[in-house]
Amino acid sequence: VIIDLGVFADEADVLRFEKGARIFTEGEDGKHMYVILEGDVDLRVGMARVETLGQGEPFGEMALIDLSPRMASAIAATDCTIAAINEERFLKLVSEHPTFALQMMGVMAGRLRLMGRKKLGFR
Amino acid sequence: VIIDLGVFADEADVLRFEKGARIFTEGEDGKHMYVILEGDVDLRVGMARVETLGQGEPFGEMALIDLSPRMASAIAATDCTIAAINEERFLKLVSEHPTFALQMMGVMAGRLRLMGRKKLGFR
Repeated sequence: VIIDLGVFADEADVLRFEKGARIFTEGEDGKHMYVILEGDVDLRVGMARVETLGQGEPFGEMALIDLSPRMASAIAATDCTIAAINEERFLKLVSEHPTFALQMMGVMAGRLRLMGRKKLGFR
Repeated sequence: VIIDLGVFADEADVLRFEKGARIFTEGEDGKHMYVILEGDVDLRVGMARVETLGQGEPFGEMALIDLSPRMASAIAATDCTIAAINEERFLKLVSEHPTFALQMMGVMAGRLRLMGRKKLGFR
């Protein structure tokens, strides 16, 4: 599942990161989620890369949804352009764009299945 | 996170299960998700109980969101009353009740954190 980028056409909060730049760090409090508009982002836990995400993929949504600390670090794997979405904008997206909510649930379902199937046999 | 039961006040598809009854089985295709209106439900993988859910807790949403087979079996742990939600109703709930979508994301975030923290250290 990737997020339809149409809803971000006029996004005010577009950030640019150079390859290797740190977007956020494991354990920090987070006030934004992100959607990749261009480029790739690595998610790392400690020294291990757990996933590389590309265009249209969201990350950091957990901190926004349940207000708990970042579970991974996010590092720009290439130069990249990223939409930053704060809580107010997130609530507006979910309210006004049900497709965004469904795509976010699809992403989370995929992560749950990946963790369940590959690592645990849980669920 | 539990689901606000207000949206299910007029639910047509309310099911009743006696203690011990099987609601669905791991590996099956699923066309519904469920929200517990009264009672408790065990989720089992193989012979192991992985979670007991109570009033207001949803389950089986993964099959609806990404159309893949059930990852666990669901067994009534007590006599229970459960709202069954098919895809059409789910899409309507997400579109008309953003709070439902946010609560569902909250539930999924909690499951991801639980799996990440307790079992893996992943994310």
